Formats: sequence, C-alpha cells, structure tokens
Amino acid sequence: MPSLRIALCQIDIIVGDLDSNVDLILAAVTQAEEAGCDLAVFGELSICGYPPEDLLFKPKFIEDNRAALARVAEASGDCAVIVGYVDRDESDGGEPDVAAPDLSKVPGAPATGAVLNAAAVCANGEVKGRYVKHWLPNYNVFDEKRYFRPGDEYPLWSIAGVTVGVCVCEDMWVDPSPVNVMADGGAQLIVNINASPYHQDKVEARDAMIARRVEETATPLVYVNLVGGQDELVFDGTSVVVDGSGETIARSKQFAEQVQVADFAVTDSKPVSLPVTMVTDRPSASVEGLPPKLEPLLEPLEEIWEALVLGARDYVHNNGFTDICFGLSGGIDSALTAAIAADALGPDHVHAVMMPSRYSSDHSLSDSEKLCQNLGIEGRTISIEPAHAAFLEMLTPEFETDEWGLTEENMQSRLRGVILMALANKFGWLVLTTGNKSETAVGYSTLYGDTAGAYAVIKDVWKLQVYELARDYNRRANREIIPENILTKAPSAELRPDQRDDQSLPPYEVLDPMLAEIVEHNKTAADLIAAGHDPETSKRIARLVDIAEFKRQQSPLGTRITKRAFGKDRRMPITNLYRGNP
Amino acid sequence: MPSLRIALCQIDIIVGDLDSNVDLILAAVTQAEEAGCDLAVFGELSICGYPPEDLLFKPKFIEDNRAALARVAEASGDCAVIVGYVDRDESDGGEPDVAAPDLSKVPGAPATGAVLNAAAVCANGEVKGRYVKHWLPNYNVFDEKRYFRPGDEYPLWSIAGVTVGVCVCEDMWVDPSPVNVMADGGAQLIVNINASPYHQDKVEARDAMIARRVEETATPLVYVNLVGGQDELVFDGTSVVVDGSGETIARSKQFAEQVQVADFAVTDSKPVSLPVTMVTDRPSASVEGLPPKLEPLLEPLEEIWEALVLGARDYVHNNGFTDICFGLSGGIDSALTAAIAADALGPDHVHAVMMPSRYSSDHSLSDSEKLCQNLGIEGRTISIEPAHAAFLEMLTPEFETDEWGLTEENMQSRLRGVILMALANKFGWLVLTTGNKSETAVGYSTLYGDTAGAYAVIKDVWKLQVYELARDYNRRANREIIPENILTKAPSAELRPDQRDDQSLPPYEVLDPMLAEIVEHNKTAADLIAAGHDPETSKRIARLVDIAEFKRQQSPLGTRITKRAFGKDRRMPITNLYRGNP
Repeated sequence: MPSLRIALCQIDIIVGDLDSNVDLILAAVTQAEEAGCDLAVFGELSICGYPPEDLLFKPKFIEDNRAALARVAEASGDCAVIVGYVDRDESDGGEPDVAAPDLSKVPGAPATGAVLNAAAVCANGEVKGRYVKHWLPNYNVFDEKRYFRPGDEYPLWSIAGVTVGVCVCEDMWVDPSPVNVMADGGAQLIVNINASPYHQDKVEARDAMIARRVEETATPLVYVNLVGGQDELVFDGTSVVVDGSGETIARSKQFAEQVQVADFAVTDSKPVSLPVTMVTDRPSASVEGLPPKLEPLLEPLEEIWEALVLGARDYVHNNGFTDICFGLSGGIDSALTAAIAADALGPDHVHAVMMPSRYSSDHSLSDSEKLCQNLGIEGRTISIEPAHAAFLEMLTPEFETDEWGLTEENMQSRLRGVILMALANKFGWLVLTTGNKSETAVGYSTLYGDTAGAYAVIKDVWKLQVYELARDYNRRANREIIPENILTKAPSAELRPDQRDDQSLPPYEVLDPMLAEIVEHNKTAADLIAAGHDPETSKRIARLVDIAEFKRQQSPLGTRITKRAFGKDRRMPITNLYRGNP
Repeated sequence: MPSLRIALCQIDIIVGDLDSNVDLILAAVTQAEEAGCDLAVFGELSICGYPPEDLLFKPKFIEDNRAALARVAEASGDCAVIVGYVDRDESDGGEPDVAAPDLSKVPGAPATGAVLNAAAVCANGEVKGRYVKHWLPNYNVFDEKRYFRPGDEYPLWSIAGVTVGVCVCEDMWVDPSPVNVMADGGAQLIVNINASPYHQDKVEARDAMIARRVEETATPLVYVNLVGGQDELVFDGTSVVVDGSGETIARSKQFAEQVQVADFAVTDSKPVSLPVTMVTDRPSASVEGLPPKLEPLLEPLEEIWEALVLGARDYVHNNGFTDICFGLSGGIDSALTAAIAADALGPDHVHAVMMPSRYSSDHSLSDSEKLCQNLGIEGRTISIEPAHAAFLEMLTPEFETDEWGLTEENMQSRLRGVILMALANKFGWLVLTTGNKSETAVGYSTLYGDTAGAYAVIKDVWKLQVYELARDYNRRANREIIPENILTKAPSAELRPDQRDDQSLPPYEVLDPMLAEIVEHNKTAADLIAAGHDPETSKRIARLVDIAEFKRQQSPLGTRITKRAFGKDRRMPITNLYRGNP
C-alpha cells in the first residue's frame, strides 16, 4: 500500500497578527521538512486567525493576508503545505467586493461578497491551487454567511504520488459531504482543516463524525485543528489521523501546540474522475507499520480546566498583558479563578485583592490569605470602609430615606470595582472577573461592580461545576490548595449582615438544572412547569434570566466551555417582553 | 380602472409582547374596517416584533406567536389583513426543528431550521394563506440566515376583485425580485411589508428602489414599515403607496404611529399565471381621483433628532421605566443628551446630576444650571470630592508613586458612575450615557465611568454632528435653550487642570472624517495615508479605534442613525493584532 509522512501542525495563532502567524507556520514547516514529511497541514484560516469577524470587510486585510500566504508558499519545498487563509474571488471582474452590501446603491442587490474561506496547497515555492470551503456555518458562534462566498469545486492534489482531497471544517459535517465526493472521485486521502472551538463532549462528537466518514469512504482522514484562545472561543487542537480501516494512527495534544509527525498507509490508487493538480512528485520516505502515536485524552474535568487555563492565558497574553488582579472574596468562585489564573500565568503574575467591608466575615479574610499562600500569589488587603462611608455621607441626603437595600449593596460592589480598576490602570494589569454561569444567568451580580473587568474566567461554568472543578484541582494536586472551608461554607455575597445566596435563589442543586434548560435548551417557564418544576420558581427564574440580558451585554467575555455560552452563542434582545409563561 | 382602499398600519410594537402587539393590530384593523378599507397592511414580524433574535430558537415562542396570529385572523372581516409573523415549515414531518443545529448528533447536518419569516393574509375569521420571505438579509445588523428557511413560492391573492402579490422587505431589493415575478404573473398590486431600520439617507434609497420596481412593472406598490425603537435599531415608518405611473399617492409620518387610509387605482387585470387564493370578494368602496395624502418629510437634522428621540423613548418606556438620570458636565454632549431626553420623556422625567470635582470649572456648573432651567428639568449637584479624597487616601499607599495620571483621571469618572447608579437604583431610574461616536471610536471614555448606563443616546452621532444638532435644536426652538457658551467652549473632560480634548486628539474637523473612513468605510491606516492624511496621525487614530474595542463591547446600546454604527453593525474581535499599516 502507498503511504505518506505527514506533519499535523497544531499552532496557536492570533487574529490579525499576520507576520507572527507566518513565522509560526514557517517554523513548523521547517520541522516537517527536517523530519522528511511529504505534507504539513495547518488549521483553517491559520494565516489570519479565526474568527477574523468584520476585519474581513477591510480590503487591505484580505490583500495583506494573501501577501502573508505568499511568504509561506515561497518558503515551501518538497514538503507540500496545506494552510487556511482568506482569498477573494476574482472571477467576476477582478475588483474586490468585500464591503458589506451597500443598500443605498440602487439596485444594490445584497451579495454575500466575494471573500473566500480557502485552503491553499503550496510546494516548491508556489501556491499550486486552492480549495474553497463549500459549507459555511451560520449558527451558534458562527457567522460565516455574513462574510464568505461558498465554493463549489472538488479539486484533487497529487502529493508524493498520492491523490489527496482537501476540505475545510464544516465540509466534513454535512450530508452529502464533499469528503465523500472527493473519495468517490479518486482521493486516496482526505485532509480536513479546522477552526473547531471547544465545548464539552466536542471531542467525542468529532471522533464519531470522522469515524463515520472513514467508514463510508474507506479512505484515511487527516483532521487538523487550531489550538489556543480567541476572545470567548478556545480551540482545543486534538488533531488526528484515522486510517482507512478506522484505526486512529495519531492524535495530537489537547490545548497545547504540537507538530506531530506520523507515517500511515493511504488507500490504493483508484480511478480518478475529478481534476488533479500536480503538487510534488518526490517519492515518500514514509514507513508502514509504525505504532500509532496517541497523546492521552484528558479526563472530563481536567479537559475543562485546561480549556479555562488556555482561554485565560491567551486572552491576557495576546492582548499584551502579563499580570492580572481580581477581587478575592473568600468564596469559591474567586478561589477557583485564582487557581486557574495562577496555572495560566504563573503565580508571580497574579495579584489578589481582598476588599473587606463592614459585612465581611473574619473567615473570608483568613481563608483568602491561606489560599494566596497555597497558590504562591500576592495578596493585599484594602478595606472599602473609608470610601463606603464617604459615599453614604454624600448620598444619604439625596435618598430621602435611610432604608438599607439593593442600592447600598450594589454600591459596595462598585467601590471594589473602582479599586481593582485603579490598581490595574496604575500597574498595567488586567482585571479578571469571577462570576460563574449560574450568577450570570440570573443577573446575581452588580454591573460596574463585580462584573467590572476584562475577562470572566469561569463565566461559562455552572456553580455546581465550580465546586467539582475546585475539588478535582485539589485531588489532582494531592493537597488542599483551595482550603476546605471555602469548599464547604454557604455561598454569600456578604453585602449585608448574614446574607446567603439561598435567601434569594433556590439551592444550586435545583437552580442549575433549571438554568441549563432555559439557557442551553431554549426552554421557557411553561416548558419547565410541564416538566414538573415548581410553577412559581420556574416563572421567577425564567424571568430573572430574561431581565438580566442588559447586564450580560455589558459584561466581559469569558471562555466558552459549553454548547451554549453567553456571548455570540446566545443573542437575545434586551428589550423583550416575552415571558414564555403558560 | 379598478381601485382599492387601503390602510397603511404603521404601529409601534415591542419584541415579545405578543398580546399587546395583537391589541395594537386589532385596534388598527377596527379603524380600517370603520373606514371601509379593503385591506389593512402591517409591517414585517408585527406579531412578535423585529428582530426577535434567539427567541426564535424557543419552540414555544413560535407557537405562541402563531396563536397570536390566530387572534388577528379570528377578528378579521371583509377587510383583508396582511401581517408579518413567524411560522414554521411543517412540510418535512411536522416536528418543530427550531433549535440551533446540534453538531453532537451525528450526522447533524447543519440545517437553517424550519422557521419561516412569513406574511399572513387573513379575512373573514381565517388565515387564508401565507407568503414566506425569499431573501434573508445576513449583513450589517441582520442575521436572518441564522434563523429562517427561505421561501420559494409566489402565491397571489384575490382581494376585493384585485389580484395582489405580497412579499417581505428584502424581497423588493434584489435582482431579479419576487416583485417582478409576481407582477409578470398577474399581480395588479404589490404589497411589501417591512422592518426596515432607519439610517441617514435611507428614505431616499427606499424611494429610489420603489420607483425602480414600479417603473419595471407598471404596477402600484404599497410599502409598509414598522415604527419605533428596538434596542439599537429605530424603525422610521414612512410607509408609502406609489401608483402604477410612479406617483406617490400616500406617505405616512416619519417616527410616529399612524393608520393612514388611501384610495388608489391599481393596474387593469392581466393574464394570471401564478396560483391565486380567494381572500375577499366584497366590491371595493374606493373612489378614484382623490388627491394624494402626503405627510411632509423632515429636514435631515430634524430627521436624525426624531430618530434619537424615538429610540431613547422606546428603550426607556419599553423596558418599564419612566425616568432617567445622567451626568451633566457642562459640555455639549451631555447638553444634547439632556435636550433629547426631555423631548423623549418629558422634562419632569429627566434628572440631571452635576458632579463637580476639584478640576471642574465654574462655567461648567453655571452653564449646566442654565440648561436645566431652560429645559425645565431637575438638576442636582453632588460633589465627588469626599469620595475622591477617600479613594486617594486608600490607594496612594498602594501606588508606590504619587505621580498623577490616567489612573486618577479614570477614578473621578468612575466615582461619578457610582453616584449615578446609586441614584438610579434608589429611585428606579435608568442611567443614560452621553458619549458621542467620535469618543466611542477612539475610546476617549472611562469604562465603568462615563460609559456606565443603560442607553447611549448619541452613541452614533459624530462630534461635529453633535454641534449641528444642538444648533439646529436652538434654531427650531427659536431661542437659546442650549446656552451659547456650551456650544462655543473648547471640549474638555475636566479630569486634570486645564485639560482639553485637542491635547490628546486632533481637532474634530480632522478627526471625524478620518474616523468615518475607518469605522464606516473599512479603511486602514495605510488607506488613510494613501489618501493624503498625515502618516503618524493616521496610524495613531486607526490604532486607537482598534484597541478601544474592549471598551465598546462593554458599553451600552444606543440608537443607530448611520449606515455603520458600533453594535451589531460592526463586529470586531477584541484580541486583534491587525493594524493595517503600510
């Protein structure tokens, strides 16, 4: 059987950083060449990063990214390079048509524009050709129909004597798939390049889809994914090669850069009915029968942990920061955030700020100090009392009442926000926020207070999972890094005497499953009631989710780890009187 | 020639408020019936409001909106009703398929879902049929390919002896248009229902498109639009009837609800090649030859004014508030915001808060007081000095330096934010923010400070236009409501002694045109330089726009009045290292 040596090039690129992205690509190509590879494969839009969003409307961005691709092509040799980039369709006149449609130009027929999501095939100093993505996802976090014109061609490529079909991401997920068309048309190997963001259970879904395509076509499939964080998305890597019999020959790391070289057998040559472009004709140096190279898959909680660590690290570093600060309250959310930040950035770069008020309990401070010691992070204490007193004195005459309420609770949270932002401004740090998905869902937060910050590390983690992650972290470390008292005390915002979360919310064991139904599964109060939940609680919780939309739209990004995160995934109007009651 | 009497029903509906929307629709239908109309026409998605966004993924929302349509149909009589609503396609099995595609279900082919953007034709207690929108806009602020399955049928309707073609919004804007297909297929009249958001010059673009379709088809066209604000969008109404000769027979008000009745001649009956559904057969009571009914069109600056007033009013009222507060600084931006708010909500509902610091000038307070008097709004003064002093005392030991800088400037702005939010929380007000588009573009604002608030009234107004609107407002009022001193003083944030905007930014006469090129026309620094702008300024300004994205994503919504506003219109990554330099 014919075989190939391939490099799965799983690199952490940054949106818009064209020069550095090309540098990373060329370094990996050099590794692949030194290893005698026939083919080096990179992820979708590796040249410009994914998703570039409305940068795609800038004509110069398209041209600069084409120039960046030319650098890759020029450096290519006998090892073919397959890499994702943005191209434009010059077939209808050569003029770039990348702006959003201009409806003021009568007739101004809305075009999707002539920008293409493409995979270039390069070798020996040239771009040999391109494949244009056929299927453009426009759901969940994806908006590709906003930007791209779909392709409709099935080019094949002759690489080291093997006929190869190349396609992009979504093209593998549809029925009928371009994968099958290309395998039927003569491809002995399918290469699928991806920008496939992580969520829980994504690896299993992907493996199942790859297995299905291989079973249908009896043709090996190379799947290469990006790795790294980009705003709310984190790409998990986990690139694979599955041979024609369905065996996994290679699997790359999760959440880490890697250039993995693998030799594997491809399908015997078959009749070719699609156009083939010659790319390279150097015979392959690959060897058959080597053992598979499989990086271990992480356990579910560790997988989430690594996603959160990589998401936070890349957000901080790629935006030009090294250090972060955050408010450490003595509660579980900020404790978990601290541990993730220490893992992501190194303890020296993490600055915890304890900001007690007249309502803070003693254990909040002592637990926090213990956590800082255990993590090796800096902790400082700044009482909010002087500012709190000043504001009460300034505002009480205005209030016409001295009744204590939400106003005074929110104020304490906002004073803490002012302190954190002042420290961040002064020292050049980013502020991390510590709210979890349950709080974010019901609006149990203070806008410009505890939501003030650049990145919300555990925004997509339900409260019950916050506890699981914290316990699993201690377990893996084999010691009590997060103090047991933090894990066991009743959750409280400590904004009034003896406040506890469960005074205003149902216990999280009840709340979280209801919220998941509403947020992730589009259920309404009526649906919850029909499923047996308490009617009044169902209506109240569903309403809280709806009316908190204004807070979420002004809250920071955070790493997406579920199939429906708050962010691009869930686009709700703020002005919305639909309640979905029976 | 045959003729019809039609009611253009331009109503201000709220997303998700199904019952109230139907009440408004039925009240208009009653008016139409009492006027002896043959046909009452409502805008796109009038039943549920536009845009419903991800509410469309809730199966119960679709069903509830179908039930709401049934209420309209039941109440209909001999006056046919054409109204936009959401339907679902039951052709492929009857099961709702409204969830975002579930890629974990192998094979999980991404479907656009079976939700339809439809126009119902109702009469005599029944839904007689529907038209499903063919062309789904997925650019600028629109995401319709995320939600809807397109239609492909061209049904015609027999109403009072006239064959009518019905289509939805975008269907009129494309080539070839369903308008032409239906006119060629026998339609004597085209009805186009719309949810067409306002921006400057939109009315002219629409008129040109309508004129073009009428000229091509020699068939009269009825264009009905929504009116009212929905988050960042404002629908301007301005519904029209254009007869087969191109004459405008009726034009409804801009930015106001109206049920306008008009009689007009339709095309003589012609051969019919498309399927026709009988809707009503009562002969029309319409009269030919009546004079046109044309509401006057507003002047350009007044048009923008009314858009801003309606956008702010509907945001405040539709979210359940009556009163607003805001920081009145003595500058032009907050003065203009005050005037718009007073116009939108009534002066009694507008609460100005003056929050001087040690750097505020005397004229700031005196000008502000004069403005409050002129507008008849409440003004109160709360010095930030006590809180400012408290924070400096709390933080100076932390700072390891007593150098004055951005940290201290931002802090003052944030203390003002705390005060405004406390007042809003205590009294049940909304906070309006006062930043303009130029500031928003370059990030000349303090996050959680002057960006703290629910609605940014003049967010999409360039600074130079802020002055124009303010002067035009005084001119129309024929008196100096906004004091001349506010119009003529040099812009300053007053966050340090003798601060002026032009110390850190070019003059607005230079800045605004550059920003418009970058923000609205996708230009990069290199493009600006090639067009003759100063190289260093071009690079600096383009960079400021890029790096302020994190601020914009946490800033409140504001009314869109340009063809490219910050918001759904312009979707940029925060993590983005593309600079577009030469």
